[in-house]
Amino acid sequence: MIEQYIDAALGNRTADVVLKNGKFVNVFTGEVQSGDIAITGGKIVGIGTYEGEREYDIRGKVAVPGLIDAHVHIESAQLAPEEFARLVMPRGTTTVIADPHEIVNVCGVAGARYMARAAANTPLEVKLMLPSCVPATPFETSGATISGAETEQLLREDLFWGLGEFMNLPGVIGRDAEAMQKLEAARSLGKIVDGHAPGAEGETLDAYIAAGISTDHECTCPEEAEEKATKGLYVHLREGTAARNVAANCRAVTAANLRRFLFCTDDRHAADIRAQGHIDNALRVAVGAGMNPVWAVIAATLNAAECYGLRGKGAIAPGYDADIAVFDDLQNFHCSYTFKRGEAVAMDGMPLFAAGDQYLPDEVRGTVRAGEISPDGFRLRLKGERANVICLEHGSLITGRAVRTVPSEDGDVVLRGTELLKLAVIERHRGTGNIGLGLLEGCGLWGGAIATTVAHDSHNIIVLGDNNADMAAAARELVRIGGGMAVVGRGRTCSLPLEIGGLMSVLPAEEFVARAEELREAAYDLGVSREIDPFMALSFLALPVIPSLKLTDQGLFDVEKFAFCSIDAEER
Amino acid sequence: MIEQYIDAALGNRTADVVLKNGKFVNVFTGEVQSGDIAITGGKIVGIGTYEGEREYDIRGKVAVPGLIDAHVHIESAQLAPEEFARLVMPRGTTTVIADPHEIVNVCGVAGARYMARAAANTPLEVKLMLPSCVPATPFETSGATISGAETEQLLREDLFWGLGEFMNLPGVIGRDAEAMQKLEAARSLGKIVDGHAPGAEGETLDAYIAAGISTDHECTCPEEAEEKATKGLYVHLREGTAARNVAANCRAVTAANLRRFLFCTDDRHAADIRAQGHIDNALRVAVGAGMNPVWAVIAATLNAAECYGLRGKGAIAPGYDADIAVFDDLQNFHCSYTFKRGEAVAMDGMPLFAAGDQYLPDEVRGTVRAGEISPDGFRLRLKGERANVICLEHGSLITGRAVRTVPSEDGDVVLRGTELLKLAVIERHRGTGNIGLGLLEGCGLWGGAIATTVAHDSHNIIVLGDNNADMAAAARELVRIGGGMAVVGRGRTCSLPLEIGGLMSVLPAEEFVARAEELREAAYDLGVSREIDPFMALSFLALPVIPSLKLTDQGLFDVEKFAFCSIDAEER
Repeated sequence: MIEQYIDAALGNRTADVVLKNGKFVNVFTGEVQSGDIAITGGKIVGIGTYEGEREYDIRGKVAVPGLIDAHVHIESAQLAPEEFARLVMPRGTTTVIADPHEIVNVCGVAGARYMARAAANTPLEVKLMLPSCVPATPFETSGATISGAETEQLLREDLFWGLGEFMNLPGVIGRDAEAMQKLEAARSLGKIVDGHAPGAEGETLDAYIAAGISTDHECTCPEEAEEKATKGLYVHLREGTAARNVAANCRAVTAANLRRFLFCTDDRHAADIRAQGHIDNALRVAVGAGMNPVWAVIAATLNAAECYGLRGKGAIAPGYDADIAVFDDLQNFHCSYTFKRGEAVAMDGMPLFAAGDQYLPDEVRGTVRAGEISPDGFRLRLKGERANVICLEHGSLITGRAVRTVPSEDGDVVLRGTELLKLAVIERHRGTGNIGLGLLEGCGLWGGAIATTVAHDSHNIIVLGDNNADMAAAARELVRIGGGMAVVGRGRTCSLPLEIGGLMSVLPAEEFVARAEELREAAYDLGVSREIDPFMALSFLALPVIPSLKLTDQGLFDVEKFAFCSIDAEER
Repeated sequence: MIEQYIDAALGNRTADVVLKNGKFVNVFTGEVQSGDIAITGGKIVGIGTYEGEREYDIRGKVAVPGLIDAHVHIESAQLAPEEFARLVMPRGTTTVIADPHEIVNVCGVAGARYMARAAANTPLEVKLMLPSCVPATPFETSGATISGAETEQLLREDLFWGLGEFMNLPGVIGRDAEAMQKLEAARSLGKIVDGHAPGAEGETLDAYIAAGISTDHECTCPEEAEEKATKGLYVHLREGTAARNVAANCRAVTAANLRRFLFCTDDRHAADIRAQGHIDNALRVAVGAGMNPVWAVIAATLNAAECYGLRGKGAIAPGYDADIAVFDDLQNFHCSYTFKRGEAVAMDGMPLFAAGDQYLPDEVRGTVRAGEISPDGFRLRLKGERANVICLEHGSLITGRAVRTVPSEDGDVVLRGTELLKLAVIERHRGTGNIGLGLLEGCGLWGGAIATTVAHDSHNIIVLGDNNADMAAAARELVRIGGGMAVVGRGRTCSLPLEIGGLMSVLPAEEFVARAEELREAAYDLGVSREIDPFMALSFLALPVIPSLKLTDQGLFDVEKFAFCSIDAEER
């Protein structure tokens, strides 16, 4: 094996592949240099003047190391890993550090095994992190639980590169026993732990880092990014669908601290990847915001490789894996070619590898196991006329709260004449029949219901509607199709299955994006405000870690008090 | 364990140790910052305002991460690892990457196990590399052989952090089967391989790197260092006893390529460490030559930790090991304190840990097992009067060569009236009785002999003298004392044992340095030129990889032709 690298480097044998006549970013010197890039046995063997069995003329273009998404929940694209790869590889991405937090909260570790095997059908290199928070909180019913002891066992498997984002900041600071056991396991096995510490600073931040956490992707301003990098955290510059922090946070990068910065997408929908791109998009945004383009490339390649200990990744130099993205320039980052271990896997925006048969084991299908669903289950009985309601805030995952007057009739609220809708979260993993009910203001739907099984982080069924019959029908439709998204109203039912764990579609990206768009239109037709993305808005209303009032299958949750609260408002 | 870090970071418990009122180098930002450094359980837990069980006032001083010697043959100090630690830790060194190439060539893997256990008696952290060239060449008899297959087995042991400097550049380029097996083993186990490629450039260098080699410490000019860093090698800036490259090569360092540079000493004698220092000395030299002091610190700490994958080393930040050197300033680098995992291990130049009982297993003692030694064995029978002789060149490890007329009498050369001395290398590992004989010009000794068992890289007995009787006596004296250095002449015998493998003394550093100095004086008394260090000069005359004419126990060796050559010069 090594012999062939040596022979090819010396020119004693023709290289397998040569990228000729182009330039490349040397991440070790920060320079754009010239030279043929010779590749043999999947590795770069030399840079100079070479001939190859296959040659690619990249005159006028710039090769950079394959881009690395340093933190992504693939599930958020809502595509199978096979389709995700077909979408991101033509954008120059060759490796992702993936935290299968969503599918594992539904299917347990079987979900992670599925992600690994499905990704292995593609040239995309996926390093899986073991989700550290399953369930995300004790205030919801998830499809699986991973204890500290199980974490210790699982981390020993090659399957997991490290421990996924440790969202339980209060658990770290409060030295929660399970949290300690998980962190101790990662420490003793020498595995990296990703962080998630929005707003943490000062001694709290020191404590969080001292606990063994190495990264953070939640900075919302350059000052926060700067403090975190100064204290030695690797800081991910994130450009997702909802959270877009690159333009602001790249201002924290200096020549001296550059090596602590990476890029990631975290949660990014297929539609955005298709329309705007993946890490290439993040680079465009960074350069547009004034970041040195070579610095941006270094952050997205060498830095990510060093942070995660990806030996042989992140550089165009002898001995490195031939993971290479060829861009037209370092301004627009239009990707002409993507190479993975020396094979051309994408050209001019199109993947060169077949979709093939998707890997679809039983474990990730038919995951919607709700109890009986009837319109009567949605009856909301108030003690009085005053209720705590959730207020949707456009353009934010944070919700407001208010106390509103709501009339009742026959043991159920009467919504007609109010600005309110009924919200329900139905447990769908264990058939417990749990149903949490609440009221939402600020959405604008009437004469129907919308529902989805993508409901962070436990991914129960969440339904929003103005009448019990349509709500029940929408929820049942999700049960029927094995999870997904549904719109029911005015005698019409539309739905789009997310067969894989109720989270991801088996469709090709293009078709899926088009059908998701149709479904969104159906929701708008029911009167949902065009200022919000109906299903994305819905999917964050069950997340009990983002302020201020949320709904889980166990009831209405006051995030600030970190406790359940009654829907009945105290009389004042 | 993690709980205590969190508690101490939050100030909920008093830290074990706090360094108060000082400044420190933040290797992540390149800044000199202020703040108390709080340490608990051996780790830095926070930087800010803290109180500790023990407090050190470092007002006016600068703390930096503990210095890392990225490549050292401890044996070259000629002290036991215990004494080496007592010498280097007061200089701010807390970790060394050690290649026990010398002792393993004498004692085999038992030598490496000895180094590890002896070092474990001290707070110095020693990461051992498995020597890759045992023997260094097939043209000499060493005490041990490590094959490719054995390398594969040994590299699986935790004992070895990686594969030691791969000196066999021709073997790599020529795809020697054993070399390939060793490199393949390191590759498949994901272990780092150190390089040694003086002068390699262009395609040869690409091939050497593509073979899986990550570092080089043999650059002799900044252009060479720059090319190597550009191609992704980590480049060690070396300041040893004979080889001193820091002042020249640090000119290759730029803001952009800084992260590829480290510091090392390679071969540095106890006398120089005592008089001038260790990595602290290298930093002084670098800063004296114009290198940014903070860059120099980053190279000697964070960069070395990243290159060798030393998690938790190389920075003063939460979560990092509390390996800290406190210097008076970043110009003179006078070390006030050294901390290892939070314990003060040195203060004002003195170690704070006891010498204790040295670990001295049988395997590394009594290693001088020569065959019978008699004056007659030194008889050098020439076919004619013309001989190929080795010419000592002052201030260089390279030797010249010349053809000289040498009279003979009774089947032996007559040296009286010439500038020549007789040189002999006597096999001393297996009692084969091998003796290689040669002639040396340019040393100036008369009426005696000097000898040592430190003779790179196989460490046979090397003897230089002007008469067979004194040469035999000197060699026998080395056998008697179990290896070391000897001076015999004019009726007097002086010697200094190197009991450990014939390479290292059991004496305390101070006493050893003084006695070595006395012995050197005894050699000068015999007429050896004061322009050379007699024993160091001798120790490199048996190294068949440095041009141009050398002597091994198997005979005179022409390094350019890489073959043995006759001492009888062809008539022209």
